[in-house]
Amino acid sequence: MSSSISKAALIAVSFGMSVTSMATAQNAPLSAQDSDPRVMGWMEGFPPPPDKLITQPDSNFFSFPKLRWSVCHLREFLPTEEVSRGLGAPVPLDYLTPAEFAETAREIDALTFTPIDGDAPMTWEQSLYANYTDGILILHKDRVVYERYFGCLAEDGKHAAMSMTKSVTGLLGEILVAEGVLDDTALVRDIIPEIGDSAFATATVREVMDMTTGVQYSENYSDPNADIWLYSRAASPLPKPEGYEGPDGYWEYLQQVKPEGNHGDQFHYKTINSDMLGWMISRVTGKSVTELASERLWRRMGAEQDAYQTVDGKGVPFAGGGISAGLRDLGRLGLLMLNAGEINGERLFPADVVDNIRAGGDPAKFAGFPTIPNGSYTSQWWVFHNDHGAFAARGVHGQTIYVDPTADMVLVRFASFPQAQNGFIDPTSLPAYQAVAEYLMSR
Amino acid sequence: MSSSISKAALIAVSFGMSVTSMATAQNAPLSAQDSDPRVMGWMEGFPPPPDKLITQPDSNFFSFPKLRWSVCHLREFLPTEEVSRGLGAPVPLDYLTPAEFAETAREIDALTFTPIDGDAPMTWEQSLYANYTDGILILHKDRVVYERYFGCLAEDGKHAAMSMTKSVTGLLGEILVAEGVLDDTALVRDIIPEIGDSAFATATVREVMDMTTGVQYSENYSDPNADIWLYSRAASPLPKPEGYEGPDGYWEYLQQVKPEGNHGDQFHYKTINSDMLGWMISRVTGKSVTELASERLWRRMGAEQDAYQTVDGKGVPFAGGGISAGLRDLGRLGLLMLNAGEINGERLFPADVVDNIRAGGDPAKFAGFPTIPNGSYTSQWWVFHNDHGAFAARGVHGQTIYVDPTADMVLVRFASFPQAQNGFIDPTSLPAYQAVAEYLMSR
Repeated sequence: MSSSISKAALIAVSFGMSVTSMATAQNAPLSAQDSDPRVMGWMEGFPPPPDKLITQPDSNFFSFPKLRWSVCHLREFLPTEEVSRGLGAPVPLDYLTPAEFAETAREIDALTFTPIDGDAPMTWEQSLYANYTDGILILHKDRVVYERYFGCLAEDGKHAAMSMTKSVTGLLGEILVAEGVLDDTALVRDIIPEIGDSAFATATVREVMDMTTGVQYSENYSDPNADIWLYSRAASPLPKPEGYEGPDGYWEYLQQVKPEGNHGDQFHYKTINSDMLGWMISRVTGKSVTELASERLWRRMGAEQDAYQTVDGKGVPFAGGGISAGLRDLGRLGLLMLNAGEINGERLFPADVVDNIRAGGDPAKFAGFPTIPNGSYTSQWWVFHNDHGAFAARGVHGQTIYVDPTADMVLVRFASFPQAQNGFIDPTSLPAYQAVAEYLMSR
Repeated sequence: MSSSISKAALIAVSFGMSVTSMATAQNAPLSAQDSDPRVMGWMEGFPPPPDKLITQPDSNFFSFPKLRWSVCHLREFLPTEEVSRGLGAPVPLDYLTPAEFAETAREIDALTFTPIDGDAPMTWEQSLYANYTDGILILHKDRVVYERYFGCLAEDGKHAAMSMTKSVTGLLGEILVAEGVLDDTALVRDIIPEIGDSAFATATVREVMDMTTGVQYSENYSDPNADIWLYSRAASPLPKPEGYEGPDGYWEYLQQVKPEGNHGDQFHYKTINSDMLGWMISRVTGKSVTELASERLWRRMGAEQDAYQTVDGKGVPFAGGGISAGLRDLGRLGLLMLNAGEINGERLFPADVVDNIRAGGDPAKFAGFPTIPNGSYTSQWWVFHNDHGAFAARGVHGQTIYVDPTADMVLVRFASFPQAQNGFIDPTSLPAYQAVAEYLMSR
């Protein structure tokens, strides 16, 4: 589990914070109800009492239970770039009629499933609390059939997408590949000559997209020289410490990555691949990933909110984890994936893009994720290779866009689970999604 | 002029930057055309060349000519809070027909006027460059008759409003006064008991709103203990320096302000009044100024963009200068002021609110602004007491919402003039506005 734990820390430290209390969540965390930020009273009052104040960089703002507030407020701690929806009218999502919606909600809430490795059944509604859900949206046949908000989130709020950001970056990359703008057989050094002697230099674009690069990225917390600390120091938008001589920003870090293993051999979930992909995307398009996400997705999918993305000290968006967005807008993104590039009667990108992602990567290269035993990872999306052909964007603390083509279903969940790694959250999530899918197929 | 210069520095240092190069603009600055950020190439490339990089906190991002880029990108340097427009469809502004619009633009561009204390006439179009205009919008009889963008700004961009933020804060305050929620005859200490022994304690809300408080706020740059430096250190969202024991955040600073002169005697333009007002507004409403601006204005005026507001290290919005917004949305705000609280057929606040502001403060207490010889300041708005009954929101480097009730005109200008103080920009601005007003009245 160490690699998963460190993913959370990576996100955290990339935000320029310390992580000393990152592990405190392990010991009997507060329940979802008790840790609700409205119950905790975080940041309430003008000013809030000192013990209710969440600040950056002093207060470990991304440690549980504070993170239950912070996931909705990242821009208040960090510099960000906008992912603009443009100026037009949003295209509202289609909904069931109110009566149908209420009835469906009752039925879904009462669905039961057995958690992975669990003994006792659990209801869908119980799972929402077990998962520390902040927002959940289910679309079936392109209509919203279920939608609820908890904790810090409301319909007009935004929530950290965490590593679902990678899937946006990967989708943009795959679109560019389909358009012939990005050659996924090219070597990184052919696109970014100044990558120099970095281990990335000789990887192909595809290996970066699929995270099968052989790059060193250690996440050993007890080692103060571990790569994760170097990356975090590089990426922090805060002033560098006195005498700091390391890389400044995501991209300088990528220029000095050492090799580990061989490119193409094995899937290793390492966030630096996503930022490497983001850099290549910007180089071949002349656009930041925020600008491109706006131009290709947010402005064209009827989005109702701008999204935003955190940036490093040089204004480079965090392509591996920086997006915050509205729940429904990620529902729109899910519809685009479900419907192979179409939304609101318009085609935004070739169907091949989604077909390639759905097909998945090489499962033989994929291991180490017990809750995804037959999975693969390609273009920064997780593919389950299950009966329903499901695939997903996933982010630490329980974020997901889960697309089930067989059930014609998109499910989006924002959460603030105490522990970062989805391996702890999947047992009460993946079977629940399957149960909802089967219910919807039976209607 | 020192008080005006230091306004710029206040804004700047409140943003957590150093101001060592703040004064370099005084010496023969580049022209508007030559300092256009697209010509300068700021932040172009992935990554930009080192000499084109604008970073915080190292590179004096708010010094000219960098500020010409930075005024459109504050959120990329600083933590911010959203001023949400909500989720509905924007209400587009009414426009002249394209043919009428083009003809009107030609006629306005060719208008001539004589700058204050100038010898030679200047055309309107020349004034746009003389003023380093980034965006300009003119509404006449509630229709857009003129709109142009320059430099860093586009119709879907946002620009720093600077001290026009004060006027939003003041408008909210005046609305609350009209509703009986905020008593402008109350003393600050009755609303904020923990203001303690601060000089603000015994000022009335009205004196704070009109900036006639007797509070010490020195702006002597050569004195490292000048108040402006203390305020900037308090407000910066960056980590406090080692051993720092001063106030943390805007509000702690306000708690230790020393007296200077008597409350009510004289108008002194001191930004700390705006933050004092913001604090009282939040205390009596239980809402941040961002939330209130959203609820009362942005969500209800048909806004087409969210705005945002910079925050201090504790998440307190900078009520004295932190807003960035779209040009047209400030046009909507101007329409609300012109039409005494109505827009799109809806009344957002009582007409008294605008009547009170238009009536102005006591001109006898107003001095020191040579370009506004008969002016006054009330509720954080500038009142010209001229033939047209014009009043305005104004911010350093040339920002304005200029409302001319006689001409039925609202003019909004974003700019990035090399020098901060509007005293330098007014000579080529105020007579130009008057010329446009007279032209529109003659049509």
